[in-house]
Amino acid sequence: MKRELEVLLRRGAARTGVIGLAGGLPSVAQFPRRALALSFLRVMRQAGTPALQYGWAEGSGRLRGYLAQRLNARGVEVRPDDVIVTSGAQQGIAMALELATRPTDVVGFDLETYPAALELARCRGLVPAGRLRDVSCAYVMPAVSNPRGRALSDLKRTSLLGERVAIIEDDAYAELRFADGPAPRPLLADATDRVFHVGTFSKILCPGLRVGWLVVPRHLRRRALELKQGIDLQSSTLAQAIVEDYLLGDGHRPGVDLDDRLLRLRRFYAGRAARLATALRKHLPGWSFDFPEGGFAIWVETDTSQPEEPFLKAALDEGVTFDPGSQFRPDAGGAEPLALRLCFSSARADSLELAIQRLARAWTVCQPTVVACPGLSTAGPPSRPRRARRDQAVTTRLRT
Amino acid sequence: MKRELEVLLRRGAARTGVIGLAGGLPSVAQFPRRALALSFLRVMRQAGTPALQYGWAEGSGRLRGYLAQRLNARGVEVRPDDVIVTSGAQQGIAMALELATRPTDVVGFDLETYPAALELARCRGLVPAGRLRDVSCAYVMPAVSNPRGRALSDLKRTSLLGERVAIIEDDAYAELRFADGPAPRPLLADATDRVFHVGTFSKILCPGLRVGWLVVPRHLRRRALELKQGIDLQSSTLAQAIVEDYLLGDGHRPGVDLDDRLLRLRRFYAGRAARLATALRKHLPGWSFDFPEGGFAIWVETDTSQPEEPFLKAALDEGVTFDPGSQFRPDAGGAEPLALRLCFSSARADSLELAIQRLARAWTVCQPTVVACPGLSTAGPPSRPRRARRDQAVTTRLRT
Repeated sequence: MKRELEVLLRRGAARTGVIGLAGGLPSVAQFPRRALALSFLRVMRQAGTPALQYGWAEGSGRLRGYLAQRLNARGVEVRPDDVIVTSGAQQGIAMALELATRPTDVVGFDLETYPAALELARCRGLVPAGRLRDVSCAYVMPAVSNPRGRALSDLKRTSLLGERVAIIEDDAYAELRFADGPAPRPLLADATDRVFHVGTFSKILCPGLRVGWLVVPRHLRRRALELKQGIDLQSSTLAQAIVEDYLLGDGHRPGVDLDDRLLRLRRFYAGRAARLATALRKHLPGWSFDFPEGGFAIWVETDTSQPEEPFLKAALDEGVTFDPGSQFRPDAGGAEPLALRLCFSSARADSLELAIQRLARAWTVCQPTVVACPGLSTAGPPSRPRRARRDQAVTTRLRT
Repeated sequence: MKRELEVLLRRGAARTGVIGLAGGLPSVAQFPRRALALSFLRVMRQAGTPALQYGWAEGSGRLRGYLAQRLNARGVEVRPDDVIVTSGAQQGIAMALELATRPTDVVGFDLETYPAALELARCRGLVPAGRLRDVSCAYVMPAVSNPRGRALSDLKRTSLLGERVAIIEDDAYAELRFADGPAPRPLLADATDRVFHVGTFSKILCPGLRVGWLVVPRHLRRRALELKQGIDLQSSTLAQAIVEDYLLGDGHRPGVDLDDRLLRLRRFYAGRAARLATALRKHLPGWSFDFPEGGFAIWVETDTSQPEEPFLKAALDEGVTFDPGSQFRPDAGGAEPLALRLCFSSARADSLELAIQRLARAWTVCQPTVVACPGLSTAGPPSRPRRARRDQAVTTRLRT
């Protein structure tokens, strides 16, 4: 991300009163706080406290068994030993990229994609492209894409599998499709020999634990484990133990019904998506978007290609933040319409309309031309007092 | 590590009754279990449970402030913003290697060194060498080395700093020197522009949390944070929050006195080291070792260069495991004396002499020649019944 945008987003996140539509954060209200705390207390009472000790690079066998079973139910033939527990989905993507590519390889992405995967590819000397054909490796989110929140069409799915290249399947939002029913069949089910399948508990439990998973083609499993050992030895034993107890119980007590939880989560986020969409249609009717099929966000395109930074600045002055669209685009050349990812996931439900009203005001302030923006700002609607705290370290914004 | 050795070590770790002198694990008895549990409960009660949410790539500001202060006290001029929280020391090493080297660079190590750093270098296409001169980058543990448990001599320190190359300073055991007094002055204090300083709570609190830290030369800080974001977004917010509360309190309650804890830990491990050394002198007087100045292990050299595998197998049959020496050697050619790392850290204190007795019996079984080993085994002292469980997934042994 451009340094200037990052500074603005950090400023927004640190300021009280600013409604955050940026960041892809799950709703705090949905964290199973009490249940996780009870699981923690149980694992801390185990003899020898294995949860505080080192573990194996591949992660907890019981947890891997559970993950394999859930994948089996979706049509994938994997065994527990095929699953590696990772430190969040991001590490799974990083490992997959390292195993599937060589420097200067062209990696294919959707026209809009997950920024941290894109930035990682650049950081590793790979060449990202906004296409899925004629590439060495393709990164996709087939069940629910980010930022669009849409499924890969059957046509594209068939075409992608026909390319016979390595595929990194990021399944982070797969369980959060709004429609009831099981998560769709993963690409992994149709090409175990070249699909790197990535999943995470960050969106459906909580991100702070950093527990994800990775399935690699079987012939790469040993290399993958050497890599995992090399990059951080293992994922947190404690976090794995908590998740394991939460999901599977401890012998005396059954685990939670995850599918039941997912049902509630889907309804919760679908309701928020509807609320944000309604506000958008009402207050910013000139902008266009497709209603998402799942996930945490709506991808919105404006009707101009003006620069992002003055608009983000104006939005911040009005008390709202969003994720600027450029960072989602592998091929951003500057001529695309200005776009935004608006997350409905973490802001309070009753603040979503207010957020869009503020956004609409900021948009008005920034029209008709960008050059006029600062002048208009003083003559236009009163902007909120600038009370940016001193930024924390100017660094990299988390992106999800 | 050679696949066969790994399988044996996994088998040993899974078998009850086997005394483990392998692995570099801290003592379970020393985990501050109750205090960490109380810290957990406090952070779970915070409004909005930030400990379960995403955080920034650089990690908790308060924790980084604490770490910077402790480095300041050791003569290093760093600010909180210079510190990046990592997922254990291993991730710090991996990041430093990635920032400090290019493929095919020669990386210098001690003649015996930390295996996971060595394997990572190989895995990344670097060329490890058992020398610290004429290399592109040097990896050292100046305060307490692993496996020897010794400090870098003043002469070597001066010579290394004179080389003017990138230095990865792994400080994992620095606070566990047996002698009382503060940890020694880090190399970082004398060359902030090219030292990558790595630390961890794994040895002094517990490994299961996976909280470590990294200080990189200031001009590389932004790149380091992009890398951190790319490889796993951030280290566990929950683990950081627990450590932060444990060390710094929560406003109502002060944190622990870490120095007081360190004092106790040093005495605890020094006592164990003495016990293991006494047993070695008594039961294996032909082997040589230097008494360590700190850490978790004694590096022992035998008087022959026979292969490791049959001996490890015999040891396992007798009911004891150790870390085979070859994996610690960057330049292992096969002609070196057979060596072992024997960890006194995690086995019960009253089992250490028994472990050495078993090791001595295994050694006898394997003499005078390796070829004769199986034959001798049946004619020699009764070996324990082989009751290897089915191995878990055959993968990579954690190594510390």
